[in-house]
Amino acid sequence: MMGVERRSMILSDEEKKNTAYHEAGHALVAAMTPGADPVHKVTIIPRGMALGLTMQLPEDDKHTYTREYLEAMLAVLMGGRSAEEIFLGHITTGAGNDIERATDIARNMVCEWGMSELGPLAYGKKEEAIFLGREIAQHRDYSEDTAIQIDKEVKRIVNGGYENAKNLLSKNRDTLERIAQALLEREVIDANEVKLLMEGKPLPEKPRTPPTPPPQAAPSTDPKVVRPELRPRAWIHPRRKPGESVSDSS
Amino acid sequence: MMGVERRSMILSDEEKKNTAYHEAGHALVAAMTPGADPVHKVTIIPRGMALGLTMQLPEDDKHTYTREYLEAMLAVLMGGRSAEEIFLGHITTGAGNDIERATDIARNMVCEWGMSELGPLAYGKKEEAIFLGREIAQHRDYSEDTAIQIDKEVKRIVNGGYENAKNLLSKNRDTLERIAQALLEREVIDANEVKLLMEGKPLPEKPRTPPTPPPQAAPSTDPKVVRPELRPRAWIHPRRKPGESVSDSS
Amino acid sequence: MMGVERRSMILSDEEKKNTAYHEAGHALVAAMTPGADPVHKVTIIPRGMALGLTMQLPEDDKHTYTREYLEAMLAVLMGGRSAEEIFLGHITTGAGNDIERATDIARNMVCEWGMSELGPLAYGKKEEAIFLGREIAQHRDYSEDTAIQIDKEVKRIVNGGYENAKNLLSKNRDTLERIAQALLEREVIDANEVKLLMEGKPLPEKPRTPPTPPPQAAPSTDPKVVRPELRPRAWIHPRRKPGESVSDSS
Amino acid sequence: MMGVERRSMILSDEEKKNTAYHEAGHALVAAMTPGADPVHKVTIIPRGMALGLTMQLPEDDKHTYTREYLEAMLAVLMGGRSAEEIFLGHITTGAGNDIERATDIARNMVCEWGMSELGPLAYGKKEEAIFLGREIAQHRDYSEDTAIQIDKEVKRIVNGGYENAKNLLSKNRDTLERIAQALLEREVIDANEVKLLMEGKPLPEKPRTPPTPPPQAAPSTDPKVVRPELRPRAWIHPRRKPGESVSDSS
Amino acid sequence: MMGVERRSMILSDEEKKNTAYHEAGHALVAAMTPGADPVHKVTIIPRGMALGLTMQLPEDDKHTYTREYLEAMLAVLMGGRSAEEIFLGHITTGAGNDIERATDIARNMVCEWGMSELGPLAYGKKEEAIFLGREIAQHRDYSEDTAIQIDKEVKRIVNGGYENAKNLLSKNRDTLERIAQALLEREVIDANEVKLLMEGKPLPEKPRTPPTPPPQAAPSTDPKVVRPELRPRAWIHPRRKPGESVSDSS
Amino acid sequence: MMGVERRSMILSDEEKKNTAYHEAGHALVAAMTPGADPVHKVTIIPRGMALGLTMQLPEDDKHTYTREYLEAMLAVLMGGRSAEEIFLGHITTGAGNDIERATDIARNMVCEWGMSELGPLAYGKKEEAIFLGREIAQHRDYSEDTAIQIDKEVKRIVNGGYENAKNLLSKNRDTLERIAQALLEREVIDANEVKLLMEGKPLPEKPRTPPTPPPQAAPSTDPKVVRPELRPRAWIHPRRKPGESVSDSS
Repeated sequence: MMGVERRSMILSDEEKKNTAYHEAGHALVAAMTPGADPVHKVTIIPRGMALGLTMQLPEDDKHTYTREYLEAMLAVLMGGRSAEEIFLGHITTGAGNDIERATDIARNMVCEWGMSELGPLAYGKKEEAIFLGREIAQHRDYSEDTAIQIDKEVKRIVNGGYENAKNLLSKNRDTLERIAQALLEREVIDANEVKLLMEGKPLPEKPRTPPTPPPQAAPSTDPKVVRPELRPRAWIHPRRKPGESVSDSS
Repeated sequence: MMGVERRSMILSDEEKKNTAYHEAGHALVAAMTPGADPVHKVTIIPRGMALGLTMQLPEDDKHTYTREYLEAMLAVLMGGRSAEEIFLGHITTGAGNDIERATDIARNMVCEWGMSELGPLAYGKKEEAIFLGREIAQHRDYSEDTAIQIDKEVKRIVNGGYENAKNLLSKNRDTLERIAQALLEREVIDANEVKLLMEGKPLPEKPRTPPTPPPQAAPSTDPKVVRPELRPRAWIHPRRKPGESVSDSS
Repeated sequence: MMGVERRSMILSDEEKKNTAYHEAGHALVAAMTPGADPVHKVTIIPRGMALGLTMQLPEDDKHTYTREYLEAMLAVLMGGRSAEEIFLGHITTGAGNDIERATDIARNMVCEWGMSELGPLAYGKKEEAIFLGREIAQHRDYSEDTAIQIDKEVKRIVNGGYENAKNLLSKNRDTLERIAQALLEREVIDANEVKLLMEGKPLPEKPRTPPTPPPQAAPSTDPKVVRPELRPRAWIHPRRKPGESVSDSS
Repeated sequence: MMGVERRSMILSDEEKKNTAYHEAGHALVAAMTPGADPVHKVTIIPRGMALGLTMQLPEDDKHTYTREYLEAMLAVLMGGRSAEEIFLGHITTGAGNDIERATDIARNMVCEWGMSELGPLAYGKKEEAIFLGREIAQHRDYSEDTAIQIDKEVKRIVNGGYENAKNLLSKNRDTLERIAQALLEREVIDANEVKLLMEGKPLPEKPRTPPTPPPQAAPSTDPKVVRPELRPRAWIHPRRKPGESVSDSS
Repeated sequence: MMGVERRSMILSDEEKKNTAYHEAGHALVAAMTPGADPVHKVTIIPRGMALGLTMQLPEDDKHTYTREYLEAMLAVLMGGRSAEEIFLGHITTGAGNDIERATDIARNMVCEWGMSELGPLAYGKKEEAIFLGREIAQHRDYSEDTAIQIDKEVKRIVNGGYENAKNLLSKNRDTLERIAQALLEREVIDANEVKLLMEGKPLPEKPRTPPTPPPQAAPSTDPKVVRPELRPRAWIHPRRKPGESVSDSS
Repeated sequence: MMGVERRSMILSDEEKKNTAYHEAGHALVAAMTPGADPVHKVTIIPRGMALGLTMQLPEDDKHTYTREYLEAMLAVLMGGRSAEEIFLGHITTGAGNDIERATDIARNMVCEWGMSELGPLAYGKKEEAIFLGREIAQHRDYSEDTAIQIDKEVKRIVNGGYENAKNLLSKNRDTLERIAQALLEREVIDANEVKLLMEGKPLPEKPRTPPTPPPQAAPSTDPKVVRPELRPRAWIHPRRKPGESVSDSS
């Protein structure tokens, strides 16, 4: 679930603006990257731990991912930080969760899925906790030389996503400005409105009351908040506050 | 056991195609590599965690393995990823489990069975958990220099299996296409049908109802799903979804 | 909370002087660094573990931090040690807590928030304690080469804050002397008095009895003592005794 | 104890042949290496986890071992793998347990008994488990440089035993063939029969029923199965299946 | 507390002499180093684990320490070993505790208090035991390169204290001889007697019965035995037997 | 205590000879090294885990050790292995315990007692077990560079003791032969008999029945078996069987 809206949380105008551009970055990269899941909704209404959210809704159930799909996902994750950098001239701690997830995906591409220069080998053994059966640590079973190669490849892959996001946003400055402004005005925009904004068309009038309800848990058409290690039905890129633990209740 | 068929799981056409070529890769390499256990059945009907399965049925009980047998197994494991790469032009996370198992086998060849440049020595000491008696960690009792050599040999051995698989599939493109197409049409093909497809002969008509029941647990003629660290009676190469824990219930 | 005042704790004149200059350093850097939260109060009356305190009160709730804000915070944290060095000619163990917090912030900037030469990647995985659910260790999942780069960047960032503090204090020696002397005379000075001292104006007469009560926990206007890993409403820079464990009760 | 015979375990002819040559290798090296304990019995009847066994029976109780004795033991342990390599043209996983034991002995020679280039020093501290009083880990208290030297010496010592075994077997091909053939025909041969085979003499007729009973636990003349870390009264070199845990019940 | 006197412990004349010179070394360095806490009492009567003790009594409560104070403390700690070396021509295990404490202080100066070439950064994170809340290990969160720099600085700082002690004692050989001889004759000397000995004046006659009682625990004027990690009211430098665990009951 | 005599343990003549020369080595080095504790008794009657014992009885209680005393102890410990090497032409596992103790002492000289090129610093922090209060691991808090230096110094110190022992025994071959022969004939020799043998004088007739009783626990004149980490009243150098755990009951 996406967590309950927290309209009582007071954001300064500065943070609202930051959040709008950050989410607009996620949304525009998602909308324009071939192979990425389509944008479902973008919002800057705080929910749970998140100051804002971008939701993507896959067109079909996915049980495996291609390298192209994962690279698109990395670009989308980097879209928030890229937008901060290009449009606001500063970077914030709000990208911390995006950074963590992107690094995890890139590391899995290298260490579990054989999608890098290191070839079709597994690196690192998972250990399970003795008491609770939970995986607690990735056991390092490789040499320092291999560790250096892994670091290089992981960095190359994440930076690739970051460059893709920056290039795309730099070439579509006006579109991003329109999406961000629409978010500041309306707080929530849906897939159709993102499309209109990308086409430079005006948005239809929209009643602000009542606020958009959270999506119902209909089996296969509505998005759910998932973590990358689970089978996603929709990707959501929340913008979190620093130092708060991340849970699925967002 | 192979796990219950999950006909309710909905795969997109794209994923069905991926799975068919992936399993066809396993099957063709198994069928054509001298010393590999014969193919028993190939299916793209999801079972448990697996999107598809290739089963090999050894001709006799094996209590020890020769290096040649292990190298054949590595080629078979790499057959799925190789087929994705050659025939679909992309690679997916579905090979993650194959990659993990191949790396484990290669590491054992180097570190336990004395089958590499490092000679007939054991590297790494197993530690047992204090509480449950389960092995939890491979205690590293060697130097960083030795770790580098181990990494090199493990990589060389897995890559060898990968090259063998790619060479074999590249030289038998038409056969693989026939097996993959047959899987897409029939969802399950057995040992005899694989043989007919390899000979370029047409398959006999086949009723699709009822679906093939899972094999009965007859003592020594039917395959069982096993993990490589146990004594296998049949090798099964499932194509799993990423991020799901692997268990014997597949 | 700030902890109860401990007027019974006897400080030597030497330590009082050290504390006054240390806190004056924090206060002046906070007051003069663009983007830093404004100074709320400065005191050399011991409270809990602290020999003195400087409190900053943010003008609005912050849920994310910009790099500029964090760099200002580092300069403020380094202001105490810098003042000792410039004005007293010796350095003391009293800066230990400031040093620890500054290093933590800089490490997070590099390893979690993507604010360094190492790019938008996460370095190090948090592990949770099995029993109590508390994070106990940062799992190191990177190579020695990366560790060296991290160390360099963390050092560069903390030293940057230190240089900023030293430059600022060196250029405003008279102001710092006035603040430190006022602290020695009055023990507590508030935001307005800091402003008067910075403008070189005389302070109004002030009754010394009763002592300033600790700030009430009014929801959003009064400062609270927080740790940098929590969402701060006010930053407080206590000057602690060495070897004592740091808790939120200070 | 040697474990109960498992005549019900079905070995393929290929594995029987492998086992016969493997055990013949152990036996011939033991019989021909000065200082090695004399061969007591050789069998290819599976017992417990073992596919075959070679038993050595020391002529007297030993409480300490000379370096020459340990080097002879290493050659005997390497005799199985050497025979596979020379006479069968392939190597199998069946030598895994021999390899582990040989590495342990060589490591003790270097790290505990001062029998290498590293001199009369102890390397690595044993740690005992807190709860059960069992040793669980060898605490590494030396530098990486020393670790490299230890690895080199351990490798040199094990390889020395391997070369000794290979040389001996290469020069005595006919004898080994006779022992292996006798094992395939009779399944069990005793010390006297090994001697006759080495002298090229025919074996006396032997009734096959009933099978040889396991040796009685007479105090000092019968062999016992022991692990190298205990005081051996007889050395037994079982040929195990891979991946099975090794216990004293074999 | 200082622990109960153990007049029943029998020391050989050799050990009494060693102890007298060792304690005289501590005492003279303490008495002659600017900034060091004044000597309160010196004794060679065994107490608890200690063969002898030198007590320093600070002139005021200290809550923070300057670098100069810590450097003086290091010289005092090294005074015992230096005296053994210069005056007895041999070194003993009795300096083990001094060495441990000096290394701890120097490490804290580098890693916690920002008093070295490594700058105002914290190195190493403290971990608390899960069960008892006690700190059990310093978590190393820095690179090997940084570890090398830390080792160099810690060594430089401890060696600095050692050189200071040796220089001071070498230039005051006669004074040290007088203090050591007085200790051998009287077993206990107080602050005033140390002063007389330093001035080359004769000591007044002194009744040997009853022995000096341990100091009363008067709040702020009497010394207490403390460990360097606590707030000291008096520093005591016991000379311990090797291999005995150190506790506060000495 | 020394453990009960185990006359029932049957040693081969070879092992008796090995033990006699090994113990004679300990005894002669102890008797001829200045500063070493005098030899009290030498025996080749097995006790507990030990095949033979050499006991030294200090002339006075020692609470601290000089470097010279420790170096003498290292030579005595190395005397057993040296004697095996020089007089028997082979080395055995029986020196394992001597090697471990010598390495421990040398490591303490370097890491705790400041008796090496590494200066008066402590290296490595002791950690206590959480549950039982026992020290379980030496926490390594130094860099790899320092570890290399420590290894070099420890090796240099142990090798120094080994060279001292070999030189001394090489120059006194006849004496050692006489002591070893006397041990083989009488099984036990006391301090006076060692002295007579060193002077080349005949031993007085000695009744062999009853066997020498174990020494009574008289407070200060009888030797006790101690471990080097405790305060020794007598040093005993047992010759143990390999792989047996060492305890104080020997």
